[in-house]
Amino acid sequence: MTPAAASITRTLFPETPAKGRVYNFSAGPAVMPESVLEQIREELIDCRGGGIGLLELSHRGALYEDLNNEAEAACRKAAGVGSDYAVFFMPGGATVQFGLLPLNFIPEGGTAAYIDTSIWSYKAYTEALRCRPVTVSFDGRALAAKYSRVPRDGEFKQPADAKYLLYCQNNTVEGTTFWAPPTTTLPLIGDATSDIFSRPWDFSKHVMVMAAGQKNLGASGASLIVARKDFIASATQKLPTILRFEDHANAGSRLNTPPTFAVRVMGLMAEWTLAVGGPDAIAKHNARKANLIWDAVDRSGGFYSWPAETWCRSHLNICFKTPKAELDTKFVAEAEKHSLFGLLGHREVGGMRASIYNAFPARGCEILAQFMDEFAKRNG
Amino acid sequence: MTPAAASITRTLFPETPAKGRVYNFSAGPAVMPESVLEQIREELIDCRGGGIGLLELSHRGALYEDLNNEAEAACRKAAGVGSDYAVFFMPGGATVQFGLLPLNFIPEGGTAAYIDTSIWSYKAYTEALRCRPVTVSFDGRALAAKYSRVPRDGEFKQPADAKYLLYCQNNTVEGTTFWAPPTTTLPLIGDATSDIFSRPWDFSKHVMVMAAGQKNLGASGASLIVARKDFIASATQKLPTILRFEDHANAGSRLNTPPTFAVRVMGLMAEWTLAVGGPDAIAKHNARKANLIWDAVDRSGGFYSWPAETWCRSHLNICFKTPKAELDTKFVAEAEKHSLFGLLGHREVGGMRASIYNAFPARGCEILAQFMDEFAKRNG
Repeated sequence: MTPAAASITRTLFPETPAKGRVYNFSAGPAVMPESVLEQIREELIDCRGGGIGLLELSHRGALYEDLNNEAEAACRKAAGVGSDYAVFFMPGGATVQFGLLPLNFIPEGGTAAYIDTSIWSYKAYTEALRCRPVTVSFDGRALAAKYSRVPRDGEFKQPADAKYLLYCQNNTVEGTTFWAPPTTTLPLIGDATSDIFSRPWDFSKHVMVMAAGQKNLGASGASLIVARKDFIASATQKLPTILRFEDHANAGSRLNTPPTFAVRVMGLMAEWTLAVGGPDAIAKHNARKANLIWDAVDRSGGFYSWPAETWCRSHLNICFKTPKAELDTKFVAEAEKHSLFGLLGHREVGGMRASIYNAFPARGCEILAQFMDEFAKRNG
Repeated sequence: MTPAAASITRTLFPETPAKGRVYNFSAGPAVMPESVLEQIREELIDCRGGGIGLLELSHRGALYEDLNNEAEAACRKAAGVGSDYAVFFMPGGATVQFGLLPLNFIPEGGTAAYIDTSIWSYKAYTEALRCRPVTVSFDGRALAAKYSRVPRDGEFKQPADAKYLLYCQNNTVEGTTFWAPPTTTLPLIGDATSDIFSRPWDFSKHVMVMAAGQKNLGASGASLIVARKDFIASATQKLPTILRFEDHANAGSRLNTPPTFAVRVMGLMAEWTLAVGGPDAIAKHNARKANLIWDAVDRSGGFYSWPAETWCRSHLNICFKTPKAELDTKFVAEAEKHSLFGLLGHREVGGMRASIYNAFPARGCEILAQFMDEFAKRNG
C-alpha cells in the first residue's frame, strides 16, 4: 500500500468529528470529510509544490488543467458513463441550470414537462414557466398529503411535444426519493443535487443529470453536468455561449474563467467517493445511517411522524416532527447540547430534518436516534 | 492598538512571498494576501467557533448571514455608493454577466452599444450579438495599432436607442486603461473585473459596475455587482428569476444557494482593501509598482516595446515584448529562476505580461525590473 492510499484508508467513512467540530446535519452546504478539508488547506498556500496557492492558480496553466481533468475523470468514473456523454462543470447551482434549461432546449412556444415532487422541482417548473409554457406531468402538491410520495411508473403524463421531462431525484425538504429513474420515452433530465454519487444510479437513462456541489460534492456555486452530447448539441445557437451547456462541454469546463476552487473541491469529493468504495459502498453506508433515524421515528409510537410514504423514504434527508411546534423548537435546542446541529426543518414545512449526505459520520446518527428515544420518553 | 489591528498592520502591502511561495504574476486567478489565505485556512475547519467549517455552513444560517452582510458592507464602503445602489453577489464570472445583460435589458429587436477596447469588451459584444443586434460604439480593433488605446471622450458613438453603453475599465490583455469613466448620456455599464478597488472610481457615473472575483477580490466563480436599483428594476420579467439581476439584489445575494465560499473570500478581500487604506492608498501603491516596470520598458532603448499609448497605460497589467518571439520564450523561462512566475503574455498577443493587482508585492516588481535591465543588456 502506498503512503497516499494508507492516508485515504484512515479517513474512510469518518465516525466522529475532529476536536471542536460538531455533528452538522445542514441540508447544504453540508458536512465534508475532514481529510478533504485538510487537503484543501494545504493547497491554499501551495498547490502541488509550485509555490502558488489553489485560489491563485491561472485557469490556463498546466497545473489547473491537471486539476480540472482529474475532477472530470473522477466524476466520469463515479457516474459510469461512456464517451457519448460529456462530463463538465458550470458556474452556478441547480437553480441556474433550471433557468438555462428552457432557454437552451425549448423553442419559443414549445414546451417541456416537470414531475413535481418537491419545492425544488416546483422551482424548476416555475423558473421555466417565466419564459416558456411548460407543464406539470405529476402534481405532488395535489396529493392528499402534499408531496408525500413520488409517482409510480406510468403515473405521470408524457406529452409528446415536451422537449424534456425533468424530475428531482431526491427531495430534500420532503424526505422522499426516487429509487430508480422514471421510465419514459421523453428525454429525461435528473436533478441529482442532493443524491449524486450516493447510490448506484443509471445515468444512461437520462439525457442530462446535473448536480450543484453543496451536498455530496462539497462547494456551492458550481454544478456538475453529465449530459448526452447529442442532446446538448440540440440547443439553440441564439444564446450567448456562456449560457449554453454545449459550449461549456466543448471548452472542457473552461469556456471562461471557471469557478476553479469549487471545481477542485468537487474533484476531491469525487475522488473521496471512489476511495471509500464508490456509490455501491456509499449506498450501504447511507442506508445504515438513515435506518438508525427512521427506526427511531417508527418506534416512537406516533410521537414522531412525517407524511412521506415509507416505500419512498429518502436515505439522505430524514424528516420528522413531534406533535407540537413548541416541542420541535425544544428538540432542536436540546439537540445542540448533544453536539447535534442544523436539525431545524425547512421553513416551508417545519419540524426537524436530519440531512446525512455521504460524508456525514454514522456515529452522529446513533447519537441522534438515542436522543430521539430519550426526548420522546420525556415529552410523550 | 488592538491585537487585531496590529495583525492587519503587519500585512499591509506584502513585500515578499512566504517561504516556498513565488512571485505570481498571473492575470487571474491571481495572487492574494497571505493574511487572507491564513484566515480562510482557519475558517475551513471551524468558522468563528461554531464547530462548522466555512464550506459546510448553511447559507440560511445566522453565521453565513453575517458573513454575507459583512461582505456586502465592505464592498459598499469601498465602492462609496449611496442607498440608490444595490451591492450584491451573483454566481459566475464576468462572461456570465455579459450573457445576462442583453437578456435582462434589451427587448427583442432592441439594441445596446459596446466600446470595444480589448478582447474582453469584444467578447461582451459578441456574446450579446448572439441574441440581440448590438452595435460597436468605438472600434479599437480598427486602430492602426489594434487596441493600442482607449477612446477619448466624444470619440465614441452614443446611439440614442441603446439600452446601455458597456466598456471594460481596464484591459488586461492590451495593457491599457480608462483613467475616468467615459462621459455619456447613455446608461453606462463598467466591467471592473480587473480594476475593482484599485483606485478611486466614480461608481455613480454608472448604472452598473460588475467585477468577477479572481483579480482583486480573490475567488473566481462569483461576481460583485454594484447597480442602480432603478436600472435593474427595468429588466424584463420574462426571464427565470435566477437570471435577473434585480432578483439577486432583492434576495440579498441569497436567491438560491449562493457561492458561499467565494462570497466570503470576496468579503475578506474587500476588508483587506479597506484595511490597507482603501482605493486611494492602493492607487498610489499600484502606480509605484507599475512604474517600476514601465520604466524598465522605457529605458531599454527599444529592446522592450508595446503598442499601448503611454497616456492610457494600465497600472495593473504591464505588457511588453522583446524584438523576437524566441527571446520572449527565453525571458519567461529565465525569469522563473528568479522566482518570477506567470509572465507569459495572453495567447492572442504574445510577449510578456506582468499582472500586478492590488495584492501583488512591490518587491516582485523591483526584481522583475532589475531582471529586465539585465536581460536586455545580455540579449540586446
